[in-house]
Amino acid sequence: MKRLAPGSRSAIVARESAADSVGEFALIARLCARLPLSPRTRLGPGDDAAIIARSRGAQLLTIDSMVEGVHFNLRWGTAEQLGARALTVNLSDIAAMGGRPAACVVNLAIRPGLSLRFFEQMYAGLGRAARAARVDVVGGNIARADQLAITIALIGDAPARPLRRDAARVGDDIFVTGTLGDAAVGWRILAGKLHARGAARAHLIDRFLAPVARLAAGARLARIRPVPAAIDISDGLWQDLGHILERSRVGAEIDPRAIPVSDAYRAVMRDDPALALGGGEDYELLFCLRPGHTERRLTAILGLRVTRIGRIIKGRGARFVGGGAPALAGWDQLRAAQ
Amino acid sequence: MKRLAPGSRSAIVARESAADSVGEFALIARLCARLPLSPRTRLGPGDDAAIIARSRGAQLLTIDSMVEGVHFNLRWGTAEQLGARALTVNLSDIAAMGGRPAACVVNLAIRPGLSLRFFEQMYAGLGRAARAARVDVVGGNIARADQLAITIALIGDAPARPLRRDAARVGDDIFVTGTLGDAAVGWRILAGKLHARGAARAHLIDRFLAPVARLAAGARLARIRPVPAAIDISDGLWQDLGHILERSRVGAEIDPRAIPVSDAYRAVMRDDPALALGGGEDYELLFCLRPGHTERRLTAILGLRVTRIGRIIKGRGARFVGGGAPALAGWDQLRAAQ
Repeated sequence: MKRLAPGSRSAIVARESAADSVGEFALIARLCARLPLSPRTRLGPGDDAAIIARSRGAQLLTIDSMVEGVHFNLRWGTAEQLGARALTVNLSDIAAMGGRPAACVVNLAIRPGLSLRFFEQMYAGLGRAARAARVDVVGGNIARADQLAITIALIGDAPARPLRRDAARVGDDIFVTGTLGDAAVGWRILAGKLHARGAARAHLIDRFLAPVARLAAGARLARIRPVPAAIDISDGLWQDLGHILERSRVGAEIDPRAIPVSDAYRAVMRDDPALALGGGEDYELLFCLRPGHTERRLTAILGLRVTRIGRIIKGRGARFVGGGAPALAGWDQLRAAQ
Repeated sequence: MKRLAPGSRSAIVARESAADSVGEFALIARLCARLPLSPRTRLGPGDDAAIIARSRGAQLLTIDSMVEGVHFNLRWGTAEQLGARALTVNLSDIAAMGGRPAACVVNLAIRPGLSLRFFEQMYAGLGRAARAARVDVVGGNIARADQLAITIALIGDAPARPLRRDAARVGDDIFVTGTLGDAAVGWRILAGKLHARGAARAHLIDRFLAPVARLAAGARLARIRPVPAAIDISDGLWQDLGHILERSRVGAEIDPRAIPVSDAYRAVMRDDPALALGGGEDYELLFCLRPGHTERRLTAILGLRVTRIGRIIKGRGARFVGGGAPALAGWDQLRAAQ
């Protein structure tokens, strides 16, 4: 993968072919030509709609979008990373339901000044992420705009009992996968607001630019009975936990010292848990289980580090053990300061 | 429906509540609260993904987007019309496959300066169109952006034999539903590039602002054997016919005098068929049938005026009977002049 020259937008600007000189249909055809399709896709890109064979059971449907200047900056990463990340944020929603992703359609809002090669690289990254998740890219649409945006809608197969947000019950233990706050620190490093070096810097930036959707862990969680409540942490632990609490009509008590952070996070943030509590873009899973499950056993089942961070209590909203709440309320797309 | 004051953007700007002061989740919840869901939707907006029961047979999936300043202008129509139209352009893709729409998810790219009331009105229009088409709006996502855009992904049930673009054969008659060019003239009237009065003006503008997806006609077409090739005319007759020809590897001979236009079109354009041949946004259906079907019989079957405009021939590309082609090549999103 070619990394774009930091600080320079010219690396992605057309030398040979500007993407907007090609025309919508030629561009879509060219971008989709290299994406493989499984036998499940009876008709892929190129018609009015895609035709997909159905599996049994219920189906999942989700949509998510990434906007230039809000969710990404072309100077920060490669076009491949951008394409892969645009799919990953959708895959994470399917993971958080315990489902298996199946097929997606892509809407590109294209601004002037981007090269055909840029979009081909973006689609190479999208294709790589799609293959890894066994997702067919079955269609696309392109619209002219002033701002680059990638919007993906993804369908998937629901498990017998999906991981819903409204299933938390008083007494449940609250767990998270992986470590939290890395992506938020990585984003701030890229934006020049925080600083780090060496392996820590690389790890934190990578967590922001190349997140991983916890698909296997989500599918395994959906086999536990009673089925856990779950959500993916895209907007920050405190905010996403809030969605579980609101939908389940319960409260939560969180131990701030239990929040799992990486060595890289600690190297930058020391003992400050603010970004682990409030920072978004980690795409880890938060889930609530009846008491009796140990971190160790869950780590073995999910194949990912699992940490207990608190428990569901009566009431509304989250608070720290002993009272209080973090100053950072979370990451809201409409309020986020650039 | 309240029509926005022409020439004034202030009508849609916040007096009470700016949409971007509410926060993403509160806004989504508020917008989706009034949308009814059918029993088929097991879990609607508010979780990581929607859960939808499956029907039998294959499934259709499509995505389409409308961008402010490219596809719409807030001074031209109401927020309700915008919401309805955003769904209709997607419904039209399902109609062009002969399918039945089922459920959709909506991505809003929201720029500053729009009121909560504006989005509530948009969703009222979206909801009205969804109810009429028996579509559940099962989820949504909101992203901050500099430019307002509405992107909808729609799933639907495929008929036993979908109307594909690659099914045209040499000798087929080519038909279209309704009249062509009205929306393109209406758009130009709104943009001040063409002028009309009275009922003609109202009709032409309405065809642009409030298009209708030919769902019933598409479903009936899909019952004809052998199953016709079909496409919806969103980018202009000549361009959309071109997609059929390319995918089917055939040519076409079109009679320009046969292109059906409305009295309103004629009142503005006289005998010039340019916008009927090249203008987009009509959302009529173009289809190709083995010889032997009359306009009269098809009009009765589809419940819509049907006109034969030419036939499929050997070769590549479209030409007029006797040779030549229109100067207007069509409407390409990436090339369209504002």
